[in-house]
Amino acid sequence: MMNNDAKTSSLAHIENLIPSLSIDCVIVGFKNQELHVLTMKLKGADLNALPGGFVRHHENLDQAALRTLKERTGLTVTFLEQFYTFSDVNRGKDKRIEQHLNKANLLTPGTKIWMQQRFISTAYLALVEMNQCDLKPDLLSEKCEWYPMNNLPHLLFDHNTIITKALEHLKVKIRYLPIGIALLPHKFTMKEIQSIYEFILNKKLDRANFQKKILRLGFLIRHEKQLSGGAHKAPYLYSFDRKKYNLLVENGIGFI
Amino acid sequence: MMNNDAKTSSLAHIENLIPSLSIDCVIVGFKNQELHVLTMKLKGADLNALPGGFVRHHENLDQAALRTLKERTGLTVTFLEQFYTFSDVNRGKDKRIEQHLNKANLLTPGTKIWMQQRFISTAYLALVEMNQCDLKPDLLSEKCEWYPMNNLPHLLFDHNTIITKALEHLKVKIRYLPIGIALLPHKFTMKEIQSIYEFILNKKLDRANFQKKILRLGFLIRHEKQLSGGAHKAPYLYSFDRKKYNLLVENGIGFI
Repeated sequence: MMNNDAKTSSLAHIENLIPSLSIDCVIVGFKNQELHVLTMKLKGADLNALPGGFVRHHENLDQAALRTLKERTGLTVTFLEQFYTFSDVNRGKDKRIEQHLNKANLLTPGTKIWMQQRFISTAYLALVEMNQCDLKPDLLSEKCEWYPMNNLPHLLFDHNTIITKALEHLKVKIRYLPIGIALLPHKFTMKEIQSIYEFILNKKLDRANFQKKILRLGFLIRHEKQLSGGAHKAPYLYSFDRKKYNLLVENGIGFI
Repeated sequence: MMNNDAKTSSLAHIENLIPSLSIDCVIVGFKNQELHVLTMKLKGADLNALPGGFVRHHENLDQAALRTLKERTGLTVTFLEQFYTFSDVNRGKDKRIEQHLNKANLLTPGTKIWMQQRFISTAYLALVEMNQCDLKPDLLSEKCEWYPMNNLPHLLFDHNTIITKALEHLKVKIRYLPIGIALLPHKFTMKEIQSIYEFILNKKLDRANFQKKILRLGFLIRHEKQLSGGAHKAPYLYSFDRKKYNLLVENGIGFI
């Protein structure tokens, strides 16, 4: 496959890259009760793609993913993990990018041939606080754009499939791990954390029942309300008990 | 890295293979209250490795894993899933295999150069019933050998690390999914299924408590004891309710 053109910023030395192998990053944030995914809008084209890149001979996949994220979005993330390697034989066939590259004359002939290989892509999931992000698109992207995870455009290649798989991965994680510490600000409401669970599980949860279950796990701290004007109407705020949170991450939440 | 020499059975046409990419299979069975892993003992050497192989241009990773398993072990498995892609820069550096290959003169010069690439390897987990296996080692292996997962020899390359990661993957799965249908015979005892959980979680579980929790999930059927000689001393036998089991696989077992 040809991978997205924005990846070419690091393509100055093709000979330093492992052939046939790429990485793609699904960067997820939370806003307005919805999970969002970061995409890159390519310069001069109505095309968006996941931030991605290639793997250098001296680095492993984790290092390549961290470097790519930093280079392409300016992000340094705290939660980043590999979740699946995508290898469909036809995953790179997307006429839109070929047309765009030909039109825009963005690549040298050598680079174009290299990009036309079949690529197998290892995908990473990053969870971030959206308002902590200082996004910087790379040379070949016009801007970084957040999209609600349930309302994505038709992204390049198999990138929509990759995002669907990332959501499935989150659905698995949420069943045995506490979640949210990387997505939420320091203080948040019960409604906000419930929204994350509802979004990932794709179903409404009973408010009282959710609150009971999540508090029983012991990783949330409830803060006293400030005594001021209409404050009695404000909801309780919570934060994470990092020690208990990490203990649960280590031991897992299981039915056994 | 050079991957294990047994992989060369399918190396007649290097030009048909994707460079730098391999697959490794962790095939897990259950016997004597312990999980076991299948390894291949290389011909004429005191070296064992995971069954593995390479990826052809016209196949995806799943297809490559299925083909390799069949070619190298004679196995057709029912449970096979990708769990991680290994990419440490030095993962393929293992003097033992170089010495063996030089000594045994097993490879043509062209194949040797190809094998000396750095390989990134996508690992698959297969769960099987050990006594249903009809193992057939390939041309370059002397035999297939099962090892208890907690008592493995020093395998080639990073294969011990791959197995450790496979066990972690099982530990995650066991927290949100029913498990055992691929490992156990049609009928089994409560002690056997408890052993699988204990092995994967690496801790003793209270017998009564385990029984209560696992039966509450509803995917086990208890069979009446046969009325014969000393049969009243025999434990109850169980089998899986496949419909309920599959429903739980679909929906997951969560705390929420």
